[in-house]
Amino acid sequence: MWGDSLKVKSESQGLSMKVALIGAGNLATNLGKALCRAGHEVVQVWSRTTESASALSKVLKCSYTTDLKDVVRSADVFIIAVKDSVLPSVAEALKEGREEQLVVHTAGSMPMDILPFERSGVLYPMQTFSKNKEVDFSIIPCFIESSNESDSMLLKTLSRTVSDTVYELDGESRKYLHLAAVFCCNFANHCFSLGADLLKRHGNIPFSVMLPLIDETAAKLYSLSPREAQTGPAVRWDTNVMDKHLQLLADTPDVQKIYELFSKSIHNDQL
Amino acid sequence: MWGDSLKVKSESQGLSMKVALIGAGNLATNLGKALCRAGHEVVQVWSRTTESASALSKVLKCSYTTDLKDVVRSADVFIIAVKDSVLPSVAEALKEGREEQLVVHTAGSMPMDILPFERSGVLYPMQTFSKNKEVDFSIIPCFIESSNESDSMLLKTLSRTVSDTVYELDGESRKYLHLAAVFCCNFANHCFSLGADLLKRHGNIPFSVMLPLIDETAAKLYSLSPREAQTGPAVRWDTNVMDKHLQLLADTPDVQKIYELFSKSIHNDQL
Repeated sequence: MWGDSLKVKSESQGLSMKVALIGAGNLATNLGKALCRAGHEVVQVWSRTTESASALSKVLKCSYTTDLKDVVRSADVFIIAVKDSVLPSVAEALKEGREEQLVVHTAGSMPMDILPFERSGVLYPMQTFSKNKEVDFSIIPCFIESSNESDSMLLKTLSRTVSDTVYELDGESRKYLHLAAVFCCNFANHCFSLGADLLKRHGNIPFSVMLPLIDETAAKLYSLSPREAQTGPAVRWDTNVMDKHLQLLADTPDVQKIYELFSKSIHNDQL
Repeated sequence: MWGDSLKVKSESQGLSMKVALIGAGNLATNLGKALCRAGHEVVQVWSRTTESASALSKVLKCSYTTDLKDVVRSADVFIIAVKDSVLPSVAEALKEGREEQLVVHTAGSMPMDILPFERSGVLYPMQTFSKNKEVDFSIIPCFIESSNESDSMLLKTLSRTVSDTVYELDGESRKYLHLAAVFCCNFANHCFSLGADLLKRHGNIPFSVMLPLIDETAAKLYSLSPREAQTGPAVRWDTNVMDKHLQLLADTPDVQKIYELFSKSIHNDQL
């Protein structure tokens, strides 16, 4: 699967595509800005609310609509960047009059064939996007898939104008990639949140003291695998320390349960 | 507790202390190197094995011993950096003939009074140390505690020659600090490990594709709290995506359980 996939090297293309952007959330905003910077033309933005549509259209210097029927009829590519839960209905509403167009979505966890178009595809930029926190799009790995070879080339070409790292990846592998991203990003971040909560409740220690430790935990991964990099009481199976930690968590049984499961899982990982 | 503590600013001291280093593991090695670089004299290294003791003594250009009875009788400070589990017995064996000395340990999770000395203390550098991965000691927050004011000053002075961030922190708060560090470092790293495992088993995707996402997850914390920074299906309570993820984890019930607990915990965290 992965062995067959193509890593496309970034090189200046000097091409400009016309893109219709369906969505105005964090991902759509970051992607839209990156596309404009790379010289593409976002011809129109759609969002459910006038507020979001209008705000992003100002940034991207394009028109906007809140009615899917009023979206332009043709573009080089339609990019749907909306919440997974509304993706099917948005795609369905977009279909009429645009059956021949190339329409892609940006969702890591959704299959390509959720899109009811002859020419469909996926452009999944694997990153965590937050409001008010701009990201450098060029370092974001983008994973693409398409229903035919020529659109695959088009998506590769488009993606490599905004990202240095573009991979072709089938939907089955993408599902696991997305799940792995949930662990590496959302779940790791929740560990930070649980740590922050402990500091706040006991001694009111500022969370900023943790940043060097967190930075080093991430930096280690450039030279060690996560398994090799692991340290702490669970690796050593230091039951003395772990028992004390479990006692400290007695007032938060859910977190205590997490501590127990993680310690066991870390220990098993090292066997 | 925290409000009363003193953050000591780093400034060049031009002093040199004589340090006896009891231990030759990752922490002892990194601390020993930092102390030498700051102009202190590590007068002797003790380790249980000749191999470790000899290796570190070469690096630090000092004598070594594997017999606690042969450790020097006086130094400005004795630093015990050994595994938590052997700390009490090492300290006990060191006591005879050194009752008047200042002896500190480096363990985040251990109370100061585990040391049977009149003048005892703690110097806890909060970082994750791995073999073959040198760290910049100056950015490591160091947390100190001592049984009397003058030794407290001595430890502060010593610590701030190797670290830019030195805090005084009592043992009760340090227990929670250490527990928070387990979440922020060990448990977060285990999330990376679980992600790496998924990538390896499905599509053999190289873990390096995750590094930009992990870097950004850590970088966000400089401008957002972990709670504010949280993204993903559990925040949105997107049961469609979460159910599919749980199915993908059907062959690893322990990891599936972790997914379930974390998703609930993330969701509760946002309420």
